[in-house]
Amino acid sequence: MAENEQSKESLQQSLQQVINLLNKHRLVEELVHKQDMPKHSLVELLVHKQNLAELQKKLDELHPADVAYILEALPIEERLQVWDLVKAERDGEILLEVSDAVRQTLIADMDSDELLAAAEQLDTDEIADLAPDLPQDVLQELLVTLDFQNRQRLQSAMSYPEYSVGALMDFDIVTIREDITLEVVLRYLRRIGKLPDHTDKLFVVDRESRLRGVLPLKRLVVNDPEASVEEVMADDAVVFHPEEEASDASQAFERYDLVTAPVVDDNNKLVGRLTVDAVMDFIREESESEVLSLAGLREEEDIFASVWKSLQNRWTWLAINLITAFIASRVIGLFEGSIEKIVALAALMPIVAGIGGNSGNQTTTMIVRGLALGQISTHNMKNLFMKEIGVGLLNGLVWGSVLGLAAFALYHNAALGLVMTGAMTLNLLLAAVMGVGIPLVMTRLGRDPAVGSSVMITAVTDSGGFFIFLGLATLFLI
Amino acid sequence: MAENEQSKESLQQSLQQVINLLNKHRLVEELVHKQDMPKHSLVELLVHKQNLAELQKKLDELHPADVAYILEALPIEERLQVWDLVKAERDGEILLEVSDAVRQTLIADMDSDELLAAAEQLDTDEIADLAPDLPQDVLQELLVTLDFQNRQRLQSAMSYPEYSVGALMDFDIVTIREDITLEVVLRYLRRIGKLPDHTDKLFVVDRESRLRGVLPLKRLVVNDPEASVEEVMADDAVVFHPEEEASDASQAFERYDLVTAPVVDDNNKLVGRLTVDAVMDFIREESESEVLSLAGLREEEDIFASVWKSLQNRWTWLAINLITAFIASRVIGLFEGSIEKIVALAALMPIVAGIGGNSGNQTTTMIVRGLALGQISTHNMKNLFMKEIGVGLLNGLVWGSVLGLAAFALYHNAALGLVMTGAMTLNLLLAAVMGVGIPLVMTRLGRDPAVGSSVMITAVTDSGGFFIFLGLATLFLI
Repeated sequence: MAENEQSKESLQQSLQQVINLLNKHRLVEELVHKQDMPKHSLVELLVHKQNLAELQKKLDELHPADVAYILEALPIEERLQVWDLVKAERDGEILLEVSDAVRQTLIADMDSDELLAAAEQLDTDEIADLAPDLPQDVLQELLVTLDFQNRQRLQSAMSYPEYSVGALMDFDIVTIREDITLEVVLRYLRRIGKLPDHTDKLFVVDRESRLRGVLPLKRLVVNDPEASVEEVMADDAVVFHPEEEASDASQAFERYDLVTAPVVDDNNKLVGRLTVDAVMDFIREESESEVLSLAGLREEEDIFASVWKSLQNRWTWLAINLITAFIASRVIGLFEGSIEKIVALAALMPIVAGIGGNSGNQTTTMIVRGLALGQISTHNMKNLFMKEIGVGLLNGLVWGSVLGLAAFALYHNAALGLVMTGAMTLNLLLAAVMGVGIPLVMTRLGRDPAVGSSVMITAVTDSGGFFIFLGLATLFLI
Repeated sequence: MAENEQSKESLQQSLQQVINLLNKHRLVEELVHKQDMPKHSLVELLVHKQNLAELQKKLDELHPADVAYILEALPIEERLQVWDLVKAERDGEILLEVSDAVRQTLIADMDSDELLAAAEQLDTDEIADLAPDLPQDVLQELLVTLDFQNRQRLQSAMSYPEYSVGALMDFDIVTIREDITLEVVLRYLRRIGKLPDHTDKLFVVDRESRLRGVLPLKRLVVNDPEASVEEVMADDAVVFHPEEEASDASQAFERYDLVTAPVVDDNNKLVGRLTVDAVMDFIREESESEVLSLAGLREEEDIFASVWKSLQNRWTWLAINLITAFIASRVIGLFEGSIEKIVALAALMPIVAGIGGNSGNQTTTMIVRGLALGQISTHNMKNLFMKEIGVGLLNGLVWGSVLGLAAFALYHNAALGLVMTGAMTLNLLLAAVMGVGIPLVMTRLGRDPAVGSSVMITAVTDSGGFFIFLGLATLFLI
C-alpha cells in the first residue's frame, strides 16, 4: 500500500527534499567558484553529478501531478532547473498537470523539438488542452504527424469553445454491439488487454456508430455470461452534446453521480465521452475563477510570476475601481460646502457607504448562486425582492439606530444622528434592490452575473451612500 | 436514451410544470371559495384530485436530485405542498439531496414517524449525514432499530468531525480474498447480483480484514480468469484514514484521478470507502462556503428563508464591518481640523482607502490559494514579499500619479497632488505587506486564512489609508 503517499505533509516533504538537493548543488557550485578551482575539476564534477542524480531519481519516483506541484511551488529559476532534470518522456503528462500560468513558463523554456516530442506522447484530447499554449509552428508540425482520424479529432476538439462539453471530452471509448452475449464481450475485452482510465461502462452502438445504450462494467460482471448485451445494457443513460455548456454538464455529473457519460452529436452518433476527472478539474477551475474574479484577478496567477506579469493580471480591475472611486469622490465634491460647515459629515460618510456595500454584496452573492443553480426565475422574483427589501429595511433601522446614537454621542447633535439613521436605512434599501436587480439584469443581457456584479454593487452603494447621506444632511442640517 | 434529461432547461421546464399544476390547483380552490359552493361538491373534488394526481405522477418520474431542485426553487408554502405529495418511500433520498437550509424546512414539516420511516430507507452513512438535522428522539429510536454492526457504524460515522474522511466515507464495500482466481471472483459477483454504486474496484483483504490491495473491475474483466487475485490486484492503491481532513483527500482524488478509495484504520483494517461523488459534493460545498464567507454569509441560505433567518445568517459579519468602519471613521475624526481647512481632503480620501483595499484583497486571495495548495512555505516567503512589494510600489506610483494629476487638475494645488501620490504609494505598500502577512500569520496561529482575511485586510487599508493620506496632508499642507 502506498501509505500516505497522497497527504499534503508528504508532498511538502518531497518539496523540501528537492529544495535541499538544489541548495546542496548550488553550494558546491559557489564553493568551486570562490576557490577559483578549474571549472571541471574531478571533485566538482563528481559531487555535482551525484546531487543531480539523486534529484533526478527523486523526481522519477513521483507521480506527474506531484512533480507539477513541486514545479508550481518553486521560484522560476529553480523551477527551470528541476524541469530540465525531468525525463523527456514525462514532459507531456506533467505539462497537462501544471496550472496555465506555470505551463507558460515551462513551455517558454523548451525548444520546438522538445515540445513536439512532449506532445507526441499525449492523446488527441490532451494535445487539444495543451494547444492554446503551443507556438503556432509546433502545432502545425504536430498536425502533420497525426493520422487522419486523430487529426480530425484534434481539429474538432480545438474548435469547441473553452467551456463546452466538446472541449472537456476525450476519445478513449470502448464500443460493443448489442446483439452479442456478455461472454463474447468478456473475450473481446481480454483480447484488448487494457481498458482506458475511468472505464466504468462500455458504449453500445449500431453499425452507424449511433448510441444504443451503455453497459456498465458492474452489470457485465454480475450478469449471466449467456445473456445478450441488449438484455443487460441500460438504455436511459444520461448523454451530452459537444456544444453544451460544461457547467451544465458538471451539474448533471453531480446530480446523477456519474463517472463517465457518452457524448453524441445531433444524429445520436457517439463522438466521445466525458469523465468525472475532467469534470472535477472543471469544477475546481470554475470555482477558483469565481473567487479570483471576486478579488479582481483576471486569472490564476503563478505565485512567482514576474512583477510585470502580475500587474497585467491585476490592472484591469484596479482601473475600473479607480474610476468608480473617482466618481464617488466627485459625488462628495458636490457637497464640499456642507462638509465645510459640518466637518463631522466627512468622518461619518464612509460608514454609510461601507455598510451598504457589504450588505449589497451579501444579497448579490446569494442571487448569483441561485441563478447558477437555476433556482431563480420569473415566478419567484417578487418573493426575492420583497424578502431582500425586508432584510435591508430591518438592517437599516437596527444598525442605523446604533450608528445614529453613536453619532449623537460623539457630536451632541440629535439631528445629525437622525440623518445618519435615515441615510443608513435608505442606502441599505438601495443595496437590497440593486443587489437583486444587478445580477438579474446582467443575466437578462446574457452576461455572467458572477463577473462584475460585486464591483457594480459596490460602486452604486458607495456613490449612492455618499449622495444620500450628504444630501439628507444638506437638506436638514444646513 | 434519456435525451437531454439532464439539461438545465428541461429542469426548469419541470419546475414550470409543477408551478402550473400548483396554480391550477389553487385557482380551483379559490373559485370554489368565491362561489361559495359546498366545500366537497363532486366537481371540485374531481378537478382537485385530477390536478394533484397529475402533479404526483410528474414528481414520481423525476430523479430525487431533480425533486430536490424543485423543492429548493419553490417558496416555503408551495414547497411544503409539493413535499406532501412526494411518496413517503422517497423522502429519505430526497432529504439527502437538498441543501442544509432547505432540509431544515422540510424536516420541520414532518412528524417523528415520518422521519423515522424516511431514515430507515437509508444506508448507515447516509443516516449519519442526516443525523445533525434530526430531532434527538428520532435519532434515539433510529439507533434502536439498527442491528449491532450498523449501530456501531452509525455511531462511529457520527463521531468524526464534519470535514474529515470518516464523515464522508460509506460502507458499501465488496471484499475478496487474494488467493482465489478471477473466475471464482466473477462467480461470487454473479451470486451477489448487484454491486453498490460507484464500484470500480473490489477490496482485497486478509482474514483480519486488513487491506492487501485492490482489484479494479477494469483489470478483472481483461485478465485471464485462471489468474489469481494476487497476481492481478494493485497493491499501491492510495488509501485514506478516517481522521484525515476531507480537503486533503479531495485534493488527492483530483491529483490521482480516483473514483473510489479504501479507508483503513491505524492497523490497516478496512473500515470503509471514499467515493468520487461524495468528494465532488464536498469540493462544491467547500468552494461555495469560501465564496459565501467572502461575502460575509455564515452559511448557504435558503433563498426563500424568512427575513429573520436571513438576518441571523448575515448579522455577524455586518456587525464586524460596522466596528471596522467605525474605527476608520474615528481615524478621520482625528483630522477634522485639517479637513475643515482643506475640504478637498474629504472628497479624495475614500479613493486612497478604496484602492488600497482592492489591491490588498488581490494579494490576499493569491496567498490564500497558494497556502491551500501547499505551495507556500518558509523557503519562498521572502520571494513572495519582495514580489508583492514590487507590485504595490509600481501600482502606487502609476495610479498614484494619475490621481495626483487629477487632484491637481480639480483643485489647482500641486502640493495636494503630491500628497495624493505619496499616500497612494504608501497605502499600496501597506496593502502588499499586510496582504501577504495576514494570511501567513493566521495560518501560523492555526486558523483558516480563507475566513476573515478579506475583512482584516480591508480594515487595515481603510483606517491605514485615511491615516496616511490625512496625516501627510496635515504635515505638508496645513
